Amino acid sequence: MSNTHSATPVRELGADSPAKGLICRNCNATYDLIAQHACWQCFGPLEVDYDQAELAKVTREQIEAGPQNIWRYAPLLPVGVHPEDRVSLNPGLTPLIDAKNLAKALGMRKLWVKDDSANPTHSFKDRVVSTAVSAAIKLGFDRFACASTGNLANSVAAHAARAGVPSIVFIPHDLEPGKIVQSAIYGGKLVAVQGSYDDVNRLCSELTETDDFETTAFVNVNIRPYYAEGSKTLGYEVAEQLGWRLPEQVVVPMASGELLTKIHKAFEESAEIGLTEPGKVRVFGAQSAGCSPIADAFAEGTDVITPVKPTGIAKSLNIGDPAAGPYAIEACRSTGGGMAKVTDDEIREGVRLLAATTGVFAETAGGVVVATLRKLLESGQLDPEAETVIYNTGEGLKTLDAVSSLVGPTHTVKPSLKAAKEAGLLES
Amino acid sequence: MSNTHSATPVRELGADSPAKGLICRNCNATYDLIAQHACWQCFGPLEVDYDQAELAKVTREQIEAGPQNIWRYAPLLPVGVHPEDRVSLNPGLTPLIDAKNLAKALGMRKLWVKDDSANPTHSFKDRVVSTAVSAAIKLGFDRFACASTGNLANSVAAHAARAGVPSIVFIPHDLEPGKIVQSAIYGGKLVAVQGSYDDVNRLCSELTETDDFETTAFVNVNIRPYYAEGSKTLGYEVAEQLGWRLPEQVVVPMASGELLTKIHKAFEESAEIGLTEPGKVRVFGAQSAGCSPIADAFAEGTDVITPVKPTGIAKSLNIGDPAAGPYAIEACRSTGGGMAKVTDDEIREGVRLLAATTGVFAETAGGVVVATLRKLLESGQLDPEAETVIYNTGEGLKTLDAVSSLVGPTHTVKPSLKAAKEAGLLES
Ligand SMILES: Cc1ncc(COP(=O)(O)O)c(C=O)c1O
Ligand SMILES: Cc1ncc(COP(=O)(O)O)c(C=O)c1O
Ligand SMILES: [Zn+2]
Ligand SMILES: [Zn+2]
Repeated sequence: MSNTHSATPVRELGADSPAKGLICRNCNATYDLIAQHACWQCFGPLEVDYDQAELAKVTREQIEAGPQNIWRYAPLLPVGVHPEDRVSLNPGLTPLIDAKNLAKALGMRKLWVKDDSANPTHSFKDRVVSTAVSAAIKLGFDRFACASTGNLANSVAAHAARAGVPSIVFIPHDLEPGKIVQSAIYGGKLVAVQGSYDDVNRLCSELTETDDFETTAFVNVNIRPYYAEGSKTLGYEVAEQLGWRLPEQVVVPMASGELLTKIHKAFEESAEIGLTEPGKVRVFGAQSAGCSPIADAFAEGTDVITPVKPTGIAKSLNIGDPAAGPYAIEACRSTGGGMAKVTDDEIREGVRLLAATTGVFAETAGGVVVATLRKLLESGQLDPEAETVIYNTGEGLKTLDAVSSLVGPTHTVKPSLKAAKEAGLLES
Repeated sequence: MSNTHSATPVRELGADSPAKGLICRNCNATYDLIAQHACWQCFGPLEVDYDQAELAKVTREQIEAGPQNIWRYAPLLPVGVHPEDRVSLNPGLTPLIDAKNLAKALGMRKLWVKDDSANPTHSFKDRVVSTAVSAAIKLGFDRFACASTGNLANSVAAHAARAGVPSIVFIPHDLEPGKIVQSAIYGGKLVAVQGSYDDVNRLCSELTETDDFETTAFVNVNIRPYYAEGSKTLGYEVAEQLGWRLPEQVVVPMASGELLTKIHKAFEESAEIGLTEPGKVRVFGAQSAGCSPIADAFAEGTDVITPVKPTGIAKSLNIGDPAAGPYAIEACRSTGGGMAKVTDDEIREGVRLLAATTGVFAETAGGVVVATLRKLLESGQLDPEAETVIYNTGEGLKTLDAVSSLVGPTHTVKPSLKAAKEAGLLES
């Protein structure tokens, strides 16, 4: 575990890694492993480009002999093969739960919950932040930053505190108290922006162009390719936990659409390089009705996203202008998957149902996934007989207010047997 | 992982386990492995009694080959050797963090944070509930219950949900919103009692005597011996994570004093049975000034505890009449350790300092530990040169209000570069 970063990295970014550069998702232009996220030719998004032959050398045994966290997949990532290169809270290897009671409630044959609320700052964002800030140090940055809907800010600030690096995180001012306090407690700068996430994101893009932010790594802006790769581990981990097998269907929450895109990529890649048998995983995307630009475009049969102004309780998913939306649509379409959107009440009920059947208390994003699962089953898009994995990417304690009207004490009594009897507690 | 319990256990409680019965901590009277917590002879507390020769057969290799959770220590516990006997969220193997920045801030040579907020319901209570409810099923109980200061209720309700067993949990009505909502979301009965924890505990004791609760297992009342053993894993795990080595000093939060007592027991036991080299671990206990009956008795040189009426923000530790207090005092005294108590402001500052230096966001109980560490260093009781482990036993998101006055956004700006400049964000 690396607790402080070394000021002068021993190895360059990409050394001893299968990553050979960056590539434009749009026009295939290639770049070195630099701090860049958009193509100079066409403005398309860049992603990490791997040497397939190097990837294909990675074995199950090699991964299984690695640490009990995301870094076991370091041979498939652009950074982190050497433990001293990891700037990390060491997230990952979160539980894959056999959700028997939930499967029964929904009439499904086999359902798993991948519970990423178990990560150090209690969302999947620890994965992407670990790969991003590890790359950032190698790229010469000396401050960590992000534009966030909450969970990312929590994770960036915590990683910075552990590493002893300054941080400055940007959030919409109206986030949940849990996400605001958690972002602040680690002691970096916390900037509440009086606008939506999309406003925050735009401001951060502008800031990356200023001299004062020249050595500041915005994990999901100027070093986004390294950030995005972290999500791949959520695909590989599920495959490994199933015994190096692919599931038949997955349901993934979407904000920018990056997570879904990368989980899909991991499934394809793991089959290509022989870590799993070939097999199509039908990928399904979940959004809330308060912010469904990707699901709406999917429903309309287009891949042109019309930006929206987000509303509703699933604040962590409230990205109105989702950068990876078209790629998420492509992933769902090409695999015979689908998308759906759900209302705030359905989301609350999803949180409740998941907790009552699995013991997993999810944030609203997890409620979106459960409610979407239900909707896709009802519409017949999702096959109840096929082995399915749903992703819970965040923690219920972070979005308490969303469900505090729904649940509470079932009984309130004075501390006496008589009072307990009168309250009906002795008729069990 | 066992998601539903089998209605008719195949094996009896204690089969294939080193536990041979229960023993009175007071008069050494022995009992079978039954559902009982107090001695019929002297009313002393019962604990699990082991066959030392069986314990001594357990090897490091055997443990290391086990699962990545508390059940790797099953050969040292009264229940759980066979996976199908585990009624559990599978907690444990939580991070042991090399707290370099915190050590530096406090002038210590080597300091570790054992972060048990990483457990499934985000406190160490998942350990004790897992052993308790696994025993409960074997003892023929068909409902799970507890008297709780919050974390225990969270864990019992979640375990019940996963197992598909009914639950009824009892809490003081004035707990933190996070703990109330989390207790309720899993769908069992949640009884808010208009009184203190000690009132709740008394009511639950009375309820265990009623016919209606005959088949209800109160994990920390009528089956307390099996519950208490779960805490031993927090001693063994630290020893294993240090490379089968004992630390020189530990700081442990105290409510009933049970956790501290069992961590101490684990250290002694692991040396006795040869899993670690012999070595004295100086054990230190931490309480808040709002509820310090154990620390006060220790300071007065007595082991007679005078019950108090608890106040203050460390609600999870607010037990005014602590059952294991005398044993905790004995553990600290016999090892050359000590105790201290800290104010609410010191607790808040402890939470902040831990987060800012380690990236671990603790609940108030964790703040109590950090503040106590600091106080014991200042008073010279704790040696800054000796290798030290502090236990964070709970999650910051559960006690948000305690620190929300302390931290928040450092800047609030409109979404424009101009506003960012005016707010001073461009002088980094
Ligand atoms: C809990 C949670 N789940 C899912 C997502 C979606 O991530 P992406 O933007 O990669 O689609 C987010 C993004 O913030 C999130 O916080
Ligand atoms: C977070 C936390 N830490 C420590 C304790 C202390 O446990 P014990 O009663 O075993 O002393 C508790 C008890 O509720 C707790 O919730
Ligand atoms: Zn291009
Ligand atoms: Zn006795």
